[in-house]
Amino acid sequence: MNKTILVTGGDADMCRHIAMDYGFKRVVTPGDILVAYPSIWPYHQLNVFSDYYHSTSQRLPKPINLTNSFKPLKIDAIFVFNNPRDWALDSQVILDLLMSRKGLLGTVSEKNGNASLPNNGWQQDEQPKLFFSHSDLVWATTYHIPRLAQGGFQASLQGIWNAKTGGAVLERTVFGKPRAATFEYAERALNKHRAQMFRGSGHIEGKDKLLRVYMIGDNPESDIRGANEFRSTFGTEWISILVKTGVYQDGAGLAYKPRVVVNNVLEAVKWALNRERLRTLDNVELDG
Amino acid sequence: MNKTILVTGGDADMCRHIAMDYGFKRVVTPGDILVAYPSIWPYHQLNVFSDYYHSTSQRLPKPINLTNSFKPLKIDAIFVFNNPRDWALDSQVILDLLMSRKGLLGTVSEKNGNASLPNNGWQQDEQPKLFFSHSDLVWATTYHIPRLAQGGFQASLQGIWNAKTGGAVLERTVFGKPRAATFEYAERALNKHRAQMFRGSGHIEGKDKLLRVYMIGDNPESDIRGANEFRSTFGTEWISILVKTGVYQDGAGLAYKPRVVVNNVLEAVKWALNRERLRTLDNVELDG
Repeated sequence: MNKTILVTGGDADMCRHIAMDYGFKRVVTPGDILVAYPSIWPYHQLNVFSDYYHSTSQRLPKPINLTNSFKPLKIDAIFVFNNPRDWALDSQVILDLLMSRKGLLGTVSEKNGNASLPNNGWQQDEQPKLFFSHSDLVWATTYHIPRLAQGGFQASLQGIWNAKTGGAVLERTVFGKPRAATFEYAERALNKHRAQMFRGSGHIEGKDKLLRVYMIGDNPESDIRGANEFRSTFGTEWISILVKTGVYQDGAGLAYKPRVVVNNVLEAVKWALNRERLRTLDNVELDG
Repeated sequence: MNKTILVTGGDADMCRHIAMDYGFKRVVTPGDILVAYPSIWPYHQLNVFSDYYHSTSQRLPKPINLTNSFKPLKIDAIFVFNNPRDWALDSQVILDLLMSRKGLLGTVSEKNGNASLPNNGWQQDEQPKLFFSHSDLVWATTYHIPRLAQGGFQASLQGIWNAKTGGAVLERTVFGKPRAATFEYAERALNKHRAQMFRGSGHIEGKDKLLRVYMIGDNPESDIRGANEFRSTFGTEWISILVKTGVYQDGAGLAYKPRVVVNNVLEAVKWALNRERLRTLDNVELDG
């Protein structure tokens, strides 16, 4: 937690406060960098962003290494917590760091493009690791067509990286659905909640395992895909239910097929309860 | 010129005025759309852009087709004149139009993703054509490392398009270097200027052709590549000279090799003049 991290995402410097709540002490935003070194993004004058950044930026913990300064700013990791507001600046700053020598902003690694190194030398010089909190391409809002989400920014950065490097891999870590870690965490939380619910009731006391989880989601690429692909270490079965009130809309193709498609969350819950009731009756019959 | 076009690029609505100077009568910016329909980009409240857009936006010529309105807004072409300031909004609006039915903003083409159609149905439903004024990925500014230019936005849009369509072609037209049209135009302009210079001098009067053009540029991908690849219909020879005062910096690899690399424009001019002097002497000797 003594590392210096760059964070972006959400309105103003909301991401800074999230990172500090997580325990990071030295948190820098692209806005902090722009205010300290306006020339890093040449559209800073009389433009759309200046007032915005000046109202929330904080002083950089160290200067940027523009002129071999003594103690330059070194970024150890980059976190994208949410859809950034200023994709252009954020893309430039992240690209700069991914091309830097050891995360020293203002430097350029001599390994970049060296065909004798892995990945043609890109991201081979201790550049900061890049993290995204999720990768949903779109999300449902009040607009009737889903809007680009954080995954849109990620795809945009991928496009710039492709053009800049001639198709090198963009090494990054993505959290969130459909990745298993998210489902593992959810299952742990559900088990903990379940144990608390039944504590002292004499019925369960943690000896029975959680048999089934109904995953209700609106996004086939993350919710449904994740539930379908997840293999619980406790043998818990995950059943995916797709609702039509969000990202997914009738008529769209389905690369990841849910167990069932229903109109909304209420119908999803009814479907699951009904299915459990039938299953219980089945069990009664089987037992009987 | 009676078409309705979407334009973006540059500060505020500069692109609108450029388009109107070109003779377009109905010019819409992404900001106009955002102010009329804030929900199209869900980060409009209390955010970085609202004041900016409200100060320069104009009323839309027609409403957007959100609810089968009678005379919906139809966009006939999209022009990116310069590096947009708000990549996120512009990406969303351009993506919406490229996915629409016949350029009607707010609609979604049923042909999208149809594997039985060319390009899997993408851009097969009379969507507006997409034009970029150039494709330089980076440009030289006061910052010591070149900054993302309009080509950066184009690469970003390509990345989103790849993610959205699963790798369909993004059909677009790009003007500017290294494309031949730019060099043809430059050659015509040089010939016209040359004819005017020598008019009445009795020496040339347009009967001699322009033998050589020295193309001095700082960008290997556009300036040098373009000059090297251009074949003049008049047989004029184009000679590329790369200077180190801009995008190109010592040590960077050169995918497109210039005839010579010099430090700056002054040296380039001296090199060219010297070369012409030597050539003239050669000719004298040959003639003599």
